[in-house]
Parts: sequence; structure tokens; C-alpha cells
Amino acid sequence: MRDFSHDHSALALNTATLGHNIDGHGAGWTPERIIDACAELGLGGVVFWRREIGKRAIEIGDHARKTGLNVAGLCRTPFLTGPLAPKPEQAMLDDFEASIDMAAGLGAEVLTIVVGGVEPGTKGLGHSLDRVAEIVVRMAPLAAARKVKLALEPLHPVYGGDRSCLVTLKDANDLCERINHPAVGIAVDVYHVWWDRSLAAELKRAGNRILGYHLCDWLAETRDVLLDRGMMGDGVADLKAIRQAVEAAGYQGLCEVEIFSAQDWWKRPPQEVLKTCVERFRTVS
Amino acid sequence: MRDFSHDHSALALNTATLGHNIDGHGAGWTPERIIDACAELGLGGVVFWRREIGKRAIEIGDHARKTGLNVAGLCRTPFLTGPLAPKPEQAMLDDFEASIDMAAGLGAEVLTIVVGGVEPGTKGLGHSLDRVAEIVVRMAPLAAARKVKLALEPLHPVYGGDRSCLVTLKDANDLCERINHPAVGIAVDVYHVWWDRSLAAELKRAGNRILGYHLCDWLAETRDVLLDRGMMGDGVADLKAIRQAVEAAGYQGLCEVEIFSAQDWWKRPPQEVLKTCVERFRTVS
Repeated sequence: MRDFSHDHSALALNTATLGHNIDGHGAGWTPERIIDACAELGLGGVVFWRREIGKRAIEIGDHARKTGLNVAGLCRTPFLTGPLAPKPEQAMLDDFEASIDMAAGLGAEVLTIVVGGVEPGTKGLGHSLDRVAEIVVRMAPLAAARKVKLALEPLHPVYGGDRSCLVTLKDANDLCERINHPAVGIAVDVYHVWWDRSLAAELKRAGNRILGYHLCDWLAETRDVLLDRGMMGDGVADLKAIRQAVEAAGYQGLCEVEIFSAQDWWKRPPQEVLKTCVERFRTVS
Repeated sequence: MRDFSHDHSALALNTATLGHNIDGHGAGWTPERIIDACAELGLGGVVFWRREIGKRAIEIGDHARKTGLNVAGLCRTPFLTGPLAPKPEQAMLDDFEASIDMAAGLGAEVLTIVVGGVEPGTKGLGHSLDRVAEIVVRMAPLAAARKVKLALEPLHPVYGGDRSCLVTLKDANDLCERINHPAVGIAVDVYHVWWDRSLAAELKRAGNRILGYHLCDWLAETRDVLLDRGMMGDGVADLKAIRQAVEAAGYQGLCEVEIFSAQDWWKRPPQEVLKTCVERFRTVS
């Protein structure tokens, strides 16, 4: 297991940690300012949300590379299924393609897929997972052609209804085996999987399908399941054990801190948040 | 699979469906009034919460039996672990024993255990599950002597931090195998398990350990994870498929409707709620 106690060059910032994923939140920093702050603090990478990028993907990607920062990823495709997916289907597919293009423009290695919830009019997860498989099979060659990898992210089962019919790492492994395309893998986020007693076995099974590892913590008394994530060390997830299993599976890439926290961290000065991320990354992650 | 379309004698009411599990909510009906209403509507059973019973367990149990209604269960033991468990340990054990005595007094066949969350100062679920096993092993003989069965209820992983370190049916099966006592089994609640793709296999494994089956629905856009459960048919859980698997595992007992719904069903007249439960039980459950 890697020793981060004196080295946080494997740390990446997901800008959601500064509230930049949602309108009306966030410090309002430009992508360039975020890149400069991360580079100055010695982070290794940054992950943006599409709303921050607009039509400036190439110029922002170039700025990151000039500072030595890796644009590790982009959040995210549209929801593919469920009540929040763009309608009609062609609008969803067009938006999926636009997200691939943006990732390619940024030079981001990975585009995250949050698959979407249960298809209206259906029951259970099976039908929706079938739809996800069909759509990703269709889009994977396009991503591969643009040198972008697609990371299916299993979300916590609490989002099973509206945001993600993909709710466990086991289901993500099953889905990857069905899709069977080298451009398609998995993002592992401790917030979504910390409770899963099958995690170590499924991480081993995932192996080099693991395209990203996301850090935060699960607060024992979570007040809001969307926007009350904890800073590493403040919750009950066994972060060291999870990372050990992730690395034992072969993953040696960046660790991306991604904390949605409307009532706490988003209200603090960004510099304080970033410094706390570094300190907690070195000590408890 | 049993046909309920013309027969709802397998339906039981959990009084939480009328808001009776939480102070400040609920229709305020006495246990006797609830029993009479259920009997009149042709239900087969009722499940109470301890706060409704006080010192009148035997008299309430007798009233139910006079009307032909089965007191199918009692909710519940104290939390055994985590931030919400009574302290010190002896207070928790005393309260556990008091809950067994109350179930015996009512003549309730089953006492539900919601195990409690992650032990303060620990990370992950393992240590807390070890504690749960120790405590249940210690209390099971007492329950058996009072002719009460203990039903471990796996809760949705969203409660993993504070309310239940037991979050899947697989974990409940593993725990039962460790405890290995004939008075200890499992309660299966669709709200907590509907998303689990391993459900059918784990139900089969559970077999005659299944001591109860709880009905409600998971609303696609759940506004509150504690108090926004849906009426059967209004959500995305595949209720027919789950019941088919429960019955294939051997369970032929009562189906207990348990809907926590502060903003919707708890605001409606109890008679309307009960009649809707009957109608939905016959048609979509």
C-alpha cells in the first residue's frame, strides 16, 4: 500500500469539493484559478464538471498541463435512464457525445457515467440496467476513438430510484462483463461503497477495470444524502482498508477527493478546504 | 405464489403506517381501536411499537386474540450498537430484556431487532457486527424461554452509520450462521432490500430463517430516507418478484405493511389508509 504520509502527489481535486458542481453553490473560482491553487499546493490532478468548462475545454486543458497538473477526469455524461435522463433518447445520446468531446478537448483520461435511475413505468433495476448496457455498448467505440475511457460509477443504493440503477460494485463488474469493451471501466467512490462487505472481493474481480478512486467520508449521522458528505476522517468509512483493497486490485492512480457538503465545507474558504484535504489525505486516507 | 387478489387475510398492519411509531405523529388511536379496525377490515394481524403498549401488554394481546387478530410482532429492541444505543451497556441489555418481556406479554411471535450503527471510535461495519453477534448470542436463550423469536432486520445501507451496521440480507444470513440459535431469524423489508440483485439467492439461503415480510414501496424520488416511504404500487420496487422469491424460500406467513410517511399517508384519515393498504395488497403486492 502506498505511503502518502509525506507525499500527496497522488491527490486530485474534484471541484465539487468547492461546490462547483451545483448552481448557487461554490467559491466561483475560474478553472484556471483552481488549477493554479492545486498546482501550488502540490496536488497531482484535478477533475472538473461540465458546467465549469463551457466551450473552453482545450484552453483549460492546456493551462492544466502547463502547470504540470493532470486533468484526471470529467463529470459527467447525462443520466442514461430513469426520470432524470434527457428526453427524447436522441437528446441523451447527443449530450453523451458532447461530454465525450469535452473530455477529449480537456485531455481528460476518464469520463464518469452516473447511469440514471429506474425507467419510468418499470419496476426493479433489471430493465434499466439492460438499457444502460445497450447505450454504453453503442457509445464506447466513440469514446475509444477520442481516447476517453468511460467510468461506470456505482452509486449508493439510496439513489437507486432516480439517479443510478447501478448500486454495487458487483453490479458494475457484471455490467462491464456484459459490455466487454476496453474503453469501459469503473469508478470506485468510498461514499457509495463503504458499507459493502463484498467490496474487497469485488475490487479484486474489477482489477484493471478500476479507472478512478474517489475519497470523502460517510458521516455517521448524515443529514442529507446528496449534499452532506464528510471530510476524510470525520466519518465511519474504513478508508485505509478500502484503499488497501483498491491498491491490492492493482490501482495505483490518483485519489480524487470529492466532497458534496452544502452546509459545511462549501461554506469555508477554498484555501482552508484544500489544505484540509491535503492534511487528511496524508494522515487518514 | 399465493393469490391475494380476493383474500387479504395474510395482510398485517404495522401501526407505523398510521404514524404510531413517533411522538407528535399518528392518528392517536388506542391499540384496541386499531385492533378493532383491522379485524373489521378482515386483516390477519397487527404489529405494535413499544411506545403504544406501556404496561398493558397482556390486556392488549388478549383483546387482539378475542377479535381473532394475530399480534404478529413487536417493534423493537433498543439499538444494540452505535451512537443511538442506550449507555451504559447494562441499560441496553435491560431494555432488550424489557422488550422481550413485552413481546411475551402481548403474545407476539416476533420481536424485531434493528441492530444499531457503527460503534463510536471505530471504522467500517465489522467491529460493530461482532458486537451485535455477541449481544444476540447472550439474549437469545432468554427470548427462547419466553417463546419469542428475534428477527434481525437488515436496513438499507443509507442507515449504515447510525441505525444499522446490518445492511444486506447476505450480511444477515452470515450473522445468523454465526449466532446459530433457533430463536434468531430475519425480517425482510422491501424498503431495505429492493435494490439488491443478490436478493433471490440470499432469500433462498435464508429459507425458514425468514420470520417476517414487510411491505411498502421505494419512491423514485425519495424526499426523506426515514419518513417518506411509499404505498405499495407508488414506487419502483418490484413487489411481485420479491414476494415470489420470499415465498419460494418457504415463507407463507403474514405480510406486514409498514409505511413511514410523515408528509403523505400519516396526514390522511386512518380509515382511508387502511382501505388503501387492503386494495394495494390485493392488486400490486
